[in-house]
Amino acid sequence: MSSGRGPIEQRPIEQRRIERLRALHGIVHRGVSVGIGDDGAVLDGGAFANGVVASVDAQFEGVHFRSSWVGRGATYRAIGFRAAVAALSDLAAMGATPRAILSSVALPVGVDDTVLEALAAGIEDAARMHGAPVVGGNLSRASELSMTTTVLGESCARPLLRRGAKVGDAVWVTGPLGARALGCRALDAGLGLDDQARAFVEAFLGPVPRFDVGRTAGARAHAGIDVSDGLVADLGHVCDAGGVAARIERDAVPRWPGHEALAARLGRDPWLDALAGGDDYELLLVGPVDDAWLASVGTRVGEIVPGQGVTIVAEGRELRLGATGFDHFG
Amino acid sequence: MSSGRGPIEQRPIEQRRIERLRALHGIVHRGVSVGIGDDGAVLDGGAFANGVVASVDAQFEGVHFRSSWVGRGATYRAIGFRAAVAALSDLAAMGATPRAILSSVALPVGVDDTVLEALAAGIEDAARMHGAPVVGGNLSRASELSMTTTVLGESCARPLLRRGAKVGDAVWVTGPLGARALGCRALDAGLGLDDQARAFVEAFLGPVPRFDVGRTAGARAHAGIDVSDGLVADLGHVCDAGGVAARIERDAVPRWPGHEALAARLGRDPWLDALAGGDDYELLLVGPVDDAWLASVGTRVGEIVPGQGVTIVAEGRELRLGATGFDHFG
Repeated sequence: MSSGRGPIEQRPIEQRRIERLRALHGIVHRGVSVGIGDDGAVLDGGAFANGVVASVDAQFEGVHFRSSWVGRGATYRAIGFRAAVAALSDLAAMGATPRAILSSVALPVGVDDTVLEALAAGIEDAARMHGAPVVGGNLSRASELSMTTTVLGESCARPLLRRGAKVGDAVWVTGPLGARALGCRALDAGLGLDDQARAFVEAFLGPVPRFDVGRTAGARAHAGIDVSDGLVADLGHVCDAGGVAARIERDAVPRWPGHEALAARLGRDPWLDALAGGDDYELLLVGPVDDAWLASVGTRVGEIVPGQGVTIVAEGRELRLGATGFDHFG
Repeated sequence: MSSGRGPIEQRPIEQRRIERLRALHGIVHRGVSVGIGDDGAVLDGGAFANGVVASVDAQFEGVHFRSSWVGRGATYRAIGFRAAVAALSDLAAMGATPRAILSSVALPVGVDDTVLEALAAGIEDAARMHGAPVVGGNLSRASELSMTTTVLGESCARPLLRRGAKVGDAVWVTGPLGARALGCRALDAGLGLDDQARAFVEAFLGPVPRFDVGRTAGARAHAGIDVSDGLVADLGHVCDAGGVAARIERDAVPRWPGHEALAARLGRDPWLDALAGGDDYELLLVGPVDDAWLASVGTRVGEIVPGQGVTIVAEGRELRLGATGFDHFG
């Protein structure tokens, strides 16, 4: 944990804050030889025989979250939790086992200590839930609040990669899509405390990385990814990596009960957030059509075909993504 | 490498930018099973038998660097290089061997592609110089430019830790201090192209992590740290970790030729930046007074004594750090 002080910085981040983070996150964890408090963390090598999986995710105020949500359905603790879990989801998407988190937080001058501590408490909640202690980080001054979270995991023998999709494969998703994007929009619209929206908001703030499925998926699926940018975009990444195309059957994409009603209330296309909303953190898996395990963990939503790009089909016709939703071609 | 797009983000970072970064950083490196382009990087486990060392450092516009320096003695490429090297220095301070970098960059809307590519080219320069390829990262929109760099290294058998200083130990530094902080101030003062300041500015922009010394230091020194916050602050961290105090002999602290003249021109106390400037990235080593190896790699600047805190002594009297420099007590 370093203080992020450069020579321009005449107002060093108080050592007191770092001490409180050390106390919150703890410094003694199994598999961690050196935790918060030195120049770097040292993780025991024995746990990483199959390889080290590393990923980083950043969340900026106004881009990925808003302080205005706090008290209107969200808390800083929930925002911190979500930042850590969003990063951990990349490990689930690789089939890795989470082992450690490094948390870099930037705070505007004048932000209250309680904000930092609430964010850190949320990150610590995620760390405990997923068995990946916060072993280091950085604290910096900045003009806006942000969290950049690095996650380290232990590779499984056969990681789940984006490349490998084959023509004829089926496409599955491990859960309903679009609820979290709708929850985010409900927060933005000030509906965070609304009865109709609450479950969606809670889902947005508390996504569940699919470690349960990810660990086995590498051995069964040809390719996979977590749905963070939206189904169309993430399936597009898988198609690009595999040199193939995909067709999605729109009506097969699972949505939450109440999705359509909340979308209507928010003035949203009823399918847009399920197909392109993002922040779902379910896994998208591509593999043999007849794989019973894949069928047991996912809902089949489409197939891999020759070509490039992702096509959505509804009522026998191809759709295209417009500015406010999906339209029929032509 | 992910696009850092959340549901609020209606303007996805262009995939094109990620593709250019992939091309720049490369995706095939020895010891890296999966590089940029998947949900996470996978590093071969064999290299980490002694442990994984991990650290993160953040650099924000206006706090750690200024875009106004560009063209006045600095380039974005140099700013990117420095961001990566500052992070790598934490590995040197642990005695670790650098193995991989994850680079999270946040850009304001409208920032030109050439800025991103110059920053990334500088990070790539550092990656190549130190044998730690950029294996992943994140691109995000934000209101100000920032770089958060995670570094992963292979632990040596006996890492160099902050704790362990003993009363009676001597304190060494591996090179002159204060030149880089003065170089930063010269950039701020618009003297980046000035003949007198140029070497200091170049030193600031191109620090050299002391991997050469760090790798052996764990076996010889009782404790150590890299001088990033300034000699007094970083020796203070070592004292706190070891439950001891230290005395520094001011006149023993090595400075660059021309330091005093440039400090005078910038209106700075001639000792302030050497004692408290920071960004030196030399190592501070604490160990047995009679250790010939420590004496061969460093300049002895002080000793460990009972108590707490760091005292500076000059002309037989104790000094204290005031707002603009060091004054005699009383």
